[in-house]
Amino acid sequence: MLRFECDYSEGCIKKIQDALCRTNLDQTPGYGMDEHCERARAIIRGLCKRDDAEVQFLVGGTQANMTLIAAALRPHQGVVSADTGHVNVHESGAIEATGHKVLPLPAKDGKITAAQIGQALHSHFSDTHAEHTVQPGLVYLSQPTENGTVYSAEELRAISKVCREYGVYLYIDGARLGYAMAACPEITFGLMAEVADAFYIGGTKVGALFGEAMVLLHPALKKDFRYILKQRGGMLAKGRLLGIQFECLLEDDTYLSIARHAVSLAQRIRQAGLDKGWRLYTDSPTNQQFFVVPNAQLAVLSRKYSYDVWEKLPGEQTAIRFCTSWATPLGQVDELVGDIRSL
Amino acid sequence: MLRFECDYSEGCIKKIQDALCRTNLDQTPGYGMDEHCERARAIIRGLCKRDDAEVQFLVGGTQANMTLIAAALRPHQGVVSADTGHVNVHESGAIEATGHKVLPLPAKDGKITAAQIGQALHSHFSDTHAEHTVQPGLVYLSQPTENGTVYSAEELRAISKVCREYGVYLYIDGARLGYAMAACPEITFGLMAEVADAFYIGGTKVGALFGEAMVLLHPALKKDFRYILKQRGGMLAKGRLLGIQFECLLEDDTYLSIARHAVSLAQRIRQAGLDKGWRLYTDSPTNQQFFVVPNAQLAVLSRKYSYDVWEKLPGEQTAIRFCTSWATPLGQVDELVGDIRSL
Amino acid sequence: MLRFECDYSEGCIKKIQDALCRTNLDQTPGYGMDEHCERARAIIRGLCKRDDAEVQFLVGGTQANMTLIAAALRPHQGVVSADTGHVNVHESGAIEATGHKVLPLPAKDGKITAAQIGQALHSHFSDTHAEHTVQPGLVYLSQPTENGTVYSAEELRAISKVCREYGVYLYIDGARLGYAMAACPEITFGLMAEVADAFYIGGTKVGALFGEAMVLLHPALKKDFRYILKQRGGMLAKGRLLGIQFECLLEDDTYLSIARHAVSLAQRIRQAGLDKGWRLYTDSPTNQQFFVVPNAQLAVLSRKYSYDVWEKLPGEQTAIRFCTSWATPLGQVDELVGDIRSL
Amino acid sequence: MLRFECDYSEGCIKKIQDALCRTNLDQTPGYGMDEHCERARAIIRGLCKRDDAEVQFLVGGTQANMTLIAAALRPHQGVVSADTGHVNVHESGAIEATGHKVLPLPAKDGKITAAQIGQALHSHFSDTHAEHTVQPGLVYLSQPTENGTVYSAEELRAISKVCREYGVYLYIDGARLGYAMAACPEITFGLMAEVADAFYIGGTKVGALFGEAMVLLHPALKKDFRYILKQRGGMLAKGRLLGIQFECLLEDDTYLSIARHAVSLAQRIRQAGLDKGWRLYTDSPTNQQFFVVPNAQLAVLSRKYSYDVWEKLPGEQTAIRFCTSWATPLGQVDELVGDIRSL
Repeated sequence: MLRFECDYSEGCIKKIQDALCRTNLDQTPGYGMDEHCERARAIIRGLCKRDDAEVQFLVGGTQANMTLIAAALRPHQGVVSADTGHVNVHESGAIEATGHKVLPLPAKDGKITAAQIGQALHSHFSDTHAEHTVQPGLVYLSQPTENGTVYSAEELRAISKVCREYGVYLYIDGARLGYAMAACPEITFGLMAEVADAFYIGGTKVGALFGEAMVLLHPALKKDFRYILKQRGGMLAKGRLLGIQFECLLEDDTYLSIARHAVSLAQRIRQAGLDKGWRLYTDSPTNQQFFVVPNAQLAVLSRKYSYDVWEKLPGEQTAIRFCTSWATPLGQVDELVGDIRSL
Repeated sequence: MLRFECDYSEGCIKKIQDALCRTNLDQTPGYGMDEHCERARAIIRGLCKRDDAEVQFLVGGTQANMTLIAAALRPHQGVVSADTGHVNVHESGAIEATGHKVLPLPAKDGKITAAQIGQALHSHFSDTHAEHTVQPGLVYLSQPTENGTVYSAEELRAISKVCREYGVYLYIDGARLGYAMAACPEITFGLMAEVADAFYIGGTKVGALFGEAMVLLHPALKKDFRYILKQRGGMLAKGRLLGIQFECLLEDDTYLSIARHAVSLAQRIRQAGLDKGWRLYTDSPTNQQFFVVPNAQLAVLSRKYSYDVWEKLPGEQTAIRFCTSWATPLGQVDELVGDIRSL
Repeated sequence: MLRFECDYSEGCIKKIQDALCRTNLDQTPGYGMDEHCERARAIIRGLCKRDDAEVQFLVGGTQANMTLIAAALRPHQGVVSADTGHVNVHESGAIEATGHKVLPLPAKDGKITAAQIGQALHSHFSDTHAEHTVQPGLVYLSQPTENGTVYSAEELRAISKVCREYGVYLYIDGARLGYAMAACPEITFGLMAEVADAFYIGGTKVGALFGEAMVLLHPALKKDFRYILKQRGGMLAKGRLLGIQFECLLEDDTYLSIARHAVSLAQRIRQAGLDKGWRLYTDSPTNQQFFVVPNAQLAVLSRKYSYDVWEKLPGEQTAIRFCTSWATPLGQVDELVGDIRSL
Repeated sequence: MLRFECDYSEGCIKKIQDALCRTNLDQTPGYGMDEHCERARAIIRGLCKRDDAEVQFLVGGTQANMTLIAAALRPHQGVVSADTGHVNVHESGAIEATGHKVLPLPAKDGKITAAQIGQALHSHFSDTHAEHTVQPGLVYLSQPTENGTVYSAEELRAISKVCREYGVYLYIDGARLGYAMAACPEITFGLMAEVADAFYIGGTKVGALFGEAMVLLHPALKKDFRYILKQRGGMLAKGRLLGIQFECLLEDDTYLSIARHAVSLAQRIRQAGLDKGWRLYTDSPTNQQFFVVPNAQLAVLSRKYSYDVWEKLPGEQTAIRFCTSWATPLGQVDELVGDIRSL
């Protein structure tokens, strides 16, 4: 089986593997207080051009989302999200388990707009019966989205502006941030730090064994964050494992360059699908490609390839997702492309 | 600085490092559904002699405790624990954040007794005003305890009996289980599976980079456990990393043999302390050794060694903890022992 | 100002006032363990024809909903509800504050169908990735709905059937149950007890000063319910106040007869609106009447009457709600009807 | 049975009964936005000499405590309380259900000291591992305590000072506040408003049918409090019922004068017990009296009187509580006193 169903089928980049082996028997303090974590934090502050940013490392994305949201909100506040957002649909109620409602807005290709958000915030804060409803306290975006699309710099700045007008946090889930950066050069760490109150740089799907780097920019979010990190089970005993990985990913151009590999392979699959006459389910410039494919053709492909079934559609068709990653071998894509063409 | 402050200062055993490198570019399904996890589960079921056990892997101990407890209890139920128990004092309120009170019992050297537990359960379930108080729903033990002591097989069986009489779960936190097994041969996986409704086999402190294997024995705890694992942020995307590590630790005598190394070194430190005239703060047969040491001597030791300050005591003395681990070099212990003797 | 904005503008029926005064200095045990509560429970069991029903009293509707749901669900489970359901929109996140997601289905005039519910349950329980999403654990209906509509006996039986097929609880919020019973004779206490696992008989909006009677039918919901009642702040110290009120409401035909008064007045308002040419926003047989009214006419009415603004509509129109209740004076309705006709 | 087991066996004072009857058919807005609530708020602000105080009404004490604490704390914070405090022992885990740990301090006769609190706060905030433990965020006192004792003005000022030094809220549960004021003239509404960040004036146990008036003094506690009131089920639809009751209790000296009645009767019981040679379990100047009584004498008393069993003691003795209230008839106390003397 050649696996295209997700971007976490393999381990990590060679450089991380080597660093972990090299440091394996070093003795360091625990809980992210070691020099590797400190160095990774310094690198991230530099990339974000924000000396005041606080950086904490977590193991996974759901953990990152629920910890940040628990730290940010008072009990009566909720999370504005695209209805397709990961926190709304694929975290088994992790946000609600911290006591907070997700307030979904209808998304188009995974994205919501500044106008929609502004309307939702206005509607709540101008309602004389507001206290009978959930107060929006944070806007959650994914960059890139779960559908592979990317918010432009202009869109992000507009959303940031409306959030600040209403005193609502903007938090960005960057599980696949590298792939957005590889696809759209205007998406940079600096831009993320400019628009967001907090965001995380995804490692799990972009070259690390595991790990996400949470960048906290708003002072109120920094305060006592590590208590909540510990409380939600996110404080890794051997915290250096996270520091070492982010040093490797970020100390030179590694993060971006491995992401470019994935994006470039994904574009080859995209072309093959288009040539085959498949409809794009969403139009994604990143490492995830979504097509509407006749079931008869899928029956052939599924003998050799794994992919993600996104939605069963009428007319004997299915929306599917192919993912590439930093690890996807060129030959594997060649094979897939060839097989698509000869369907 | 030679580090004796905890048992998670280093990475992992060589065998795990090799296995992670060897499998690094393999493609596997995510979320613990891969063949490594399946094999590790089968090994654990065999060691526990329980074909019906369900095994799920988590990254760390606080995460394991809060997930199991959230899965086990209804909202009005609480956790009976030694007042020194990890869930009561060192998890930043993780259990309360799932909605449940910890009901502490006064511990002696980290342990509570079947009689104490029986008294607490009787007291609640015979109280006509019980519904105004928290109902005990689960008894939490640590094996070995946070103070390095070990529950004997007889003690565990007595506690298990009283729990079953009252229909209350018994859950055992085995963060350092290997060190209890190395110190006391009657402590086996089979015994744990016999007495507990759930327990976890600690990897983080016993040879793994990270990871804990939760063994679920009571049918009601197995049901839908993976939903709650996901909800609490504990479902690792690259779940195979946990499966591979537990295969390595458990497929032959590795887990026990690396734990024996730590325990044997700890006993040498213990002897050095006793010879020096230090009072044992608790009498521990495992890898953690607790002494009452004059502050003047600590001032000397602390130039070269890190240890954990446990409690400041009157009379210019401090209770401290030295930890060894699977990774502690013999030479480092020789050096410490020599320096203790020459204080 | 003549108030038609809600059905809780006044105090209570005379009979309750008298009973409260008469018993005021009696001494009784607290917390709902008195003889008035016991007698009210017996009456309710009789009306429901269910000797096995457990009845507990609460002060208000949000409290009733959050307590029942907290008692019913495991952490990973959620509540299927109409998107217009009270638990989804007007409880300030009370359900999420107990840790559970509300899973909204698009409603038509406040109602959802057995087919919709069946589809949602099938979709979850047949999904191989289900554990990444919230598991439906309870279906919430309002009878009558927030839009004044009523589920027929056939609809309720069909919904009940699909819930039982999937092992999901059916819970019915009867805040205004009397008004549904007054409007549709097939809606009886017996029917509610037949189809639901739990439901509550609303007192606050139907003749009582305050109070709701929760009827628990499923054995698992009865177990330890009073602990959770206490935990969520719903156990009234002077519990007899609730018992006395439900004795008065239910010991003879009082509940139904006062509800009929409200429904009959509401139908007169309905006719006046229709005669005026107002569009029905929803077609309600109960005590709430929803119209689409030109803003110019509202400007006139609002000088003398209060009503609830439901939705601002295009074309200088507004959807509004008029409520009657057990307490609405006939003369007040005459006046409103006259003023509508002469607009 | 003559009831001395608690102070909520009866209904309400005549004045409240009359006011409720008189206003019964008035139409008012809901949710505490009516003129009775506004007037009661103004009276309370006057009594507290704090024009900036926000006042919100709740139905009961557990509801008041859990709502205030949920509004006050971030997720990693806990409540410092006497181990005998109501929030620690008699609310079925209501505080933990909002996610927060109660951090108990050993109490003497129900009270904790500024020194104890200062030590606990210092210990946490000076701990380098603090983030692994629960951060104290609020100190909870009961005035009078559950054991009938009263904090002096000096004690309250000292506790308030230490709380402010550490930036920790001071919240005072005044379920029986009137009885403390009746017993100790230095305890005034003004003093409470001076020392506390929030406190509540208990109605349920001091003359009302039900109801507690929460006085919010710290600006951060006022913000959005009504959202959380609604979310926790504490916003009464017919909110005026609470406003009317607090108008009646507080508009003249009523609250204090009815409390004096209870205290004076309690002191007669106290003298009878002392004369009989019973040991005082705690030395209470308020309406609750605690004695250690031989079981043989209790067997006689219990035929005619109800009392609360506080603790079974060795030597065939039991600690019991007698309560008086605003409603206790003089003749009933005469009878009890006579029967004690003739035991």
